[in-house]
Amino acid sequence: MYKARKLVRLPGPFHMRHGGVLPEVDVAYETWGTLRPARDNAVLIFTGLSPGAHAASSAEDPTPGWWEEVVGPGQAIDTDRLFVICVNSLGSCHGSTGPASVDPRTGKPYRLNFPCLTIEDVAAAGHAAVRELGIERVRAVVGPSMGGMTAIAYAMQHPDACEALVTISAACRSLPFSLAIRSIQREAIRTDPEWNGGDYEGKGPVNGMRLARKLGLMTYRSAKEWRERFGRERAGFHDEEQLFGIEFEVEAYLEMHAQKFVGTFDPNCYLYLSRAMDIFDVAEHGGSLEAGLARIKARHALVIGVETDFLFPIDQQAEIAQILHKQGRDVKFAPLTSLQGHDSFLVDMERFCPVIGEFLDRI
Amino acid sequence: MYKARKLVRLPGPFHMRHGGVLPEVDVAYETWGTLRPARDNAVLIFTGLSPGAHAASSAEDPTPGWWEEVVGPGQAIDTDRLFVICVNSLGSCHGSTGPASVDPRTGKPYRLNFPCLTIEDVAAAGHAAVRELGIERVRAVVGPSMGGMTAIAYAMQHPDACEALVTISAACRSLPFSLAIRSIQREAIRTDPEWNGGDYEGKGPVNGMRLARKLGLMTYRSAKEWRERFGRERAGFHDEEQLFGIEFEVEAYLEMHAQKFVGTFDPNCYLYLSRAMDIFDVAEHGGSLEAGLARIKARHALVIGVETDFLFPIDQQAEIAQILHKQGRDVKFAPLTSLQGHDSFLVDMERFCPVIGEFLDRI
Repeated sequence: MYKARKLVRLPGPFHMRHGGVLPEVDVAYETWGTLRPARDNAVLIFTGLSPGAHAASSAEDPTPGWWEEVVGPGQAIDTDRLFVICVNSLGSCHGSTGPASVDPRTGKPYRLNFPCLTIEDVAAAGHAAVRELGIERVRAVVGPSMGGMTAIAYAMQHPDACEALVTISAACRSLPFSLAIRSIQREAIRTDPEWNGGDYEGKGPVNGMRLARKLGLMTYRSAKEWRERFGRERAGFHDEEQLFGIEFEVEAYLEMHAQKFVGTFDPNCYLYLSRAMDIFDVAEHGGSLEAGLARIKARHALVIGVETDFLFPIDQQAEIAQILHKQGRDVKFAPLTSLQGHDSFLVDMERFCPVIGEFLDRI
Repeated sequence: MYKARKLVRLPGPFHMRHGGVLPEVDVAYETWGTLRPARDNAVLIFTGLSPGAHAASSAEDPTPGWWEEVVGPGQAIDTDRLFVICVNSLGSCHGSTGPASVDPRTGKPYRLNFPCLTIEDVAAAGHAAVRELGIERVRAVVGPSMGGMTAIAYAMQHPDACEALVTISAACRSLPFSLAIRSIQREAIRTDPEWNGGDYEGKGPVNGMRLARKLGLMTYRSAKEWRERFGRERAGFHDEEQLFGIEFEVEAYLEMHAQKFVGTFDPNCYLYLSRAMDIFDVAEHGGSLEAGLARIKARHALVIGVETDFLFPIDQQAEIAQILHKQGRDVKFAPLTSLQGHDSFLVDMERFCPVIGEFLDRI
């Protein structure tokens, strides 16, 4: 169903944090730039919930990546001097092992037999993959959104495996609003009869996935951006027969994005990754956020947040930065005024690129 | 399915703003206090999307109403001196004629044959009902949320029928965020197979209504309130068998409220009222918000908004107040710091009651 450019098979069975063993784990990844003989110029990128490892175009795959304007020669994450690795999350469906993968013990897809997935598992799989590529320590581990949570987990669990931590629009744990919006997304998928308890064929719960995606989009952008962008513009088309069909431009926008998403992401994988974001809590590592973040040994940290983000509000970024600063890390906190909310890191290049570029140049 | 304390049958057929005729319209209402012989002490309340006319308890119905702490003897809307009428909206299912009512022409429920419903129709039905009760002019027309939109429509359409206008957490029109959240709610209902194109029996699309209610709740409160109230508390119960079941307290809260709602509100009525909020736009009355609001002749206006409201943000209340003020109305604008978001008018009595009470005492 999904293509992956490169795969690394992890050595031996993979033990999940909350129990359960995966006998075989593949991690899909892509790389850009050249690893120096000293193996000291690697940057590891973890992704948000839905993207795959294709962060940027390359000779092998010239299609634009999800972070095309950030990763490349002379760009903020400069592939002229850095060796950049982006991994597809464990539990995802873009090449890495996940609920849509075949369990070698049964010859059938895992589906809901996949064990409980945590952000720590995603980080551990990424870490193991990078080691398989012969890299013990990365210059920086970088992640936006769920990827930022994963980067934190990576830096906590493998303190010697990164010199710097870059979190973007992330959090140490999810607050009730964010828990609720994801819970409702999962409910939309699970109550779609086509979900069939996770045992679907083909695209499965299309209506549920469409609703989940639309809800996600609401929290990825900001009300202010939409107000300026859509106002009360009517959609170019309006089916008069459809009393409750699309009428406003904002509805057409949601529908367009939802249709693009459905069929490109496995619904069970979505459920597992969504819940992993809910249950992640730095405080589980030692009893408090402070104790958890104290495990991090990265000397440098860049914490970026956006004032219009209401999925992971800016004060959650300030919290990460303040704690790391108190613990003696060299911390740069960058609160940005981007209009586009949580997803600003995908679009507001003017604000994000200089901050990321200057940090990586300096460390 | 739903009980109504009192009904008034409007005289003659009712012509809907966007076309279509209802041969018979009933409006359910309740009253508190005594109408003076001069008939000059009436206050008319329009409601939000889901409540019925039972705003407060009474001798006939001692169960607490949805605005129990606001309407009553010696309270902010003081029934010792005011005659208070609350009407159930046209298009609703709590006694007034709506999509769940029987079309006398066919002997079957209207369902989707109900004509397009607008906020202006709701206001017109309320106005006609009050006239049937022998009242030409009310002291004040009052409404929170959708009821505030309806109060604005009432004051625009029937300029001589009110001395004062009180809008609470309302707006002259919905912005894209608010359009989107309601559009997704309607989609959740419409894509539930049990909706069956509007032709369901019994409770109908239970899953869709549950999702819609949960989504509504997210926008009725504030992320800040939930953060203080729920944090990351686990629910008292957790079904281990249910991999994606309720885990956090905030999820249990949503589920509890959703279950209370399902079965008490007709899904088709929900769709019609929800869309009526989307398509309402004061600017349709004369070409601009200013032209629309200029039709209002009420001498006094009280405009209340809440800073944590992200369904109808506070600047939408400020807009109403500023325009009315420029047009020479005596306007009191009350931006409140309530924590509970859009629904603060239902819970933050400490802030709301004095503001409403002082205004009604003064005019």
